[in-house]
Amino acid sequence: MKVVVTGGAGFLGQRLIRALCERGKATDSAGRERPIERIIAVDQGQCSEPLIDGRLAYALGDIADASFVGNVLAADTDSVFHLAAVVSGAAERDFDLGMRVNLDGTRFLLEACRRQTRVPKVVFASSVAVFGQPLPAVVTDATTPTPQSSYGVQKLVGELLLGDCSRKGFIDGRSIRLPTIVVRPGKPNAAASSFASGIIREPLAGEESLCPVEPSTGVWMSSPATAVAAMVHAHELPAAAWGTQRSLNLPGHTATVAEMIEALRSAAGDAVASRVRFRIDEPIAAIVRSWPARFDTARARAMGFPQDADFDSILRDYMRQYSPAAWR
Amino acid sequence: MKVVVTGGAGFLGQRLIRALCERGKATDSAGRERPIERIIAVDQGQCSEPLIDGRLAYALGDIADASFVGNVLAADTDSVFHLAAVVSGAAERDFDLGMRVNLDGTRFLLEACRRQTRVPKVVFASSVAVFGQPLPAVVTDATTPTPQSSYGVQKLVGELLLGDCSRKGFIDGRSIRLPTIVVRPGKPNAAASSFASGIIREPLAGEESLCPVEPSTGVWMSSPATAVAAMVHAHELPAAAWGTQRSLNLPGHTATVAEMIEALRSAAGDAVASRVRFRIDEPIAAIVRSWPARFDTARARAMGFPQDADFDSILRDYMRQYSPAAWR
Repeated sequence: MKVVVTGGAGFLGQRLIRALCERGKATDSAGRERPIERIIAVDQGQCSEPLIDGRLAYALGDIADASFVGNVLAADTDSVFHLAAVVSGAAERDFDLGMRVNLDGTRFLLEACRRQTRVPKVVFASSVAVFGQPLPAVVTDATTPTPQSSYGVQKLVGELLLGDCSRKGFIDGRSIRLPTIVVRPGKPNAAASSFASGIIREPLAGEESLCPVEPSTGVWMSSPATAVAAMVHAHELPAAAWGTQRSLNLPGHTATVAEMIEALRSAAGDAVASRVRFRIDEPIAAIVRSWPARFDTARARAMGFPQDADFDSILRDYMRQYSPAAWR
Repeated sequence: MKVVVTGGAGFLGQRLIRALCERGKATDSAGRERPIERIIAVDQGQCSEPLIDGRLAYALGDIADASFVGNVLAADTDSVFHLAAVVSGAAERDFDLGMRVNLDGTRFLLEACRRQTRVPKVVFASSVAVFGQPLPAVVTDATTPTPQSSYGVQKLVGELLLGDCSRKGFIDGRSIRLPTIVVRPGKPNAAASSFASGIIREPLAGEESLCPVEPSTGVWMSSPATAVAAMVHAHELPAAAWGTQRSLNLPGHTATVAEMIEALRSAAGDAVASRVRFRIDEPIAAIVRSWPARFDTARARAMGFPQDADFDSILRDYMRQYSPAAWR
């Protein structure tokens, strides 16, 4: 099998590729389990410590360049994991950039998918940002997405196009709405949700973290490991498990910012937890406030998607893997 | 005011332009009522008996040609009524044509709207085709659109982009989901709903009509006059009446095909009604079956949108206006 991962040099992309390499095989759209022979990681730039594997190649270019995308997919792609995106805060600040990458990029990718010899599976990393106010207290599989951010609109449009191309038989598409990924290692990014990792990561690294939202803000979250497992699971499920509804709210876990800081205090002490300070950033807070914090994900659970146990285990996993030796 | 009507040479476009000419004035996005000085009817071709009015000009071209659209809007457009579309059956048969006209065309129009001196009002003729199976027995304002046709997907994407551009302050957009328009005069078209007019229009003109769907099929409908009145009302309402929810299910009336034929029998006699014959066309029937037939349109009614009384009055209005003298 040939697998293309867009956003493949990113944090989740690299973890997904590692998982695919370890797995070594995957199920194609005809339901046959086949060895993964080639993985192409598509991204706009290289990451600092890229994975090296004999099956893996990097294609650096612009996802909104139709000919680049067409060349990467050629006619022999079996599966695509589409993770590349301009993140929420950046898509809000630069409308045209978001439309170009998040909408045109997805459209060009789907066009290229139609030119494959075999119907390709496409797993699309959508987001709970497709939901916006007004919202019920608990979002269910029946809740109408009414996005109130350009990023959310662009992700929802991507889902709709993926769904229609699946209905037409051009692809076998699956859109999964990822919760906020906590804890991301590395540096803050332009996602409006960046604080949710920052308030854990920076204090553990001995730095101050400025939280742009209120302590009472609820965050619907998933650990990186669970998110990657969900992408693989979304790919491996048979088409019949998806039926005509190709978009899915993934399982996650809700914690408020205050609860996250208390968990940090328990795990790493007062001195660490006191490195979080609050300075409300209204544009960021407005986006985050429009997102849902509580879900009932009955459909995803029935489909066998994985779920984190609680925030404490997410936090301790991160500390084991990434934080200074003192916290191990 | 300068008003642009896309699809302006079409049946509804021409009726809308006549209504705007008769009205003579409209409310701009700043809430000021101003005289309508110019109307540009945009279409790919001219109609056979185009309206003539000193304020009206025709611009013939391709809505999916960004420079054409930009030239028509220039920088002085106050309002756009966006009716141009590849209809449902045609968009299903030719996926690329539907994407080009219905998605790219809308996108280019919104791009051109951003270049206006004043924030333009945009009324978008969406459709109940944004809904698809599975559906509740009665569709409400809270029902999630899950389109099962390319046309429905493209209309829903248009709504989402219109909503986001409104949120960003680029335009003052309003999307209205039109019911099936019954009775359309003229010839059958490539809309999957074309039969709903055909089973009335052709028998009254002394011709046979082949109905491609079952007699029990319910149709959610609006008369042309009510649809045009709804477009004008959607335009005239203040932005505050729309709030953050820029898409709306319009009021309509439900009748089954069997009920429509019975009404025809009462109004025009057995001989006329017997000119309807059934020959199920599965691709058409499948699209129509995926559409909802019953709605609760509480929000639209609270916003003061007009509604037809019943199918009988829709039918008799049509007979008065269009059918041979014998039926007047």
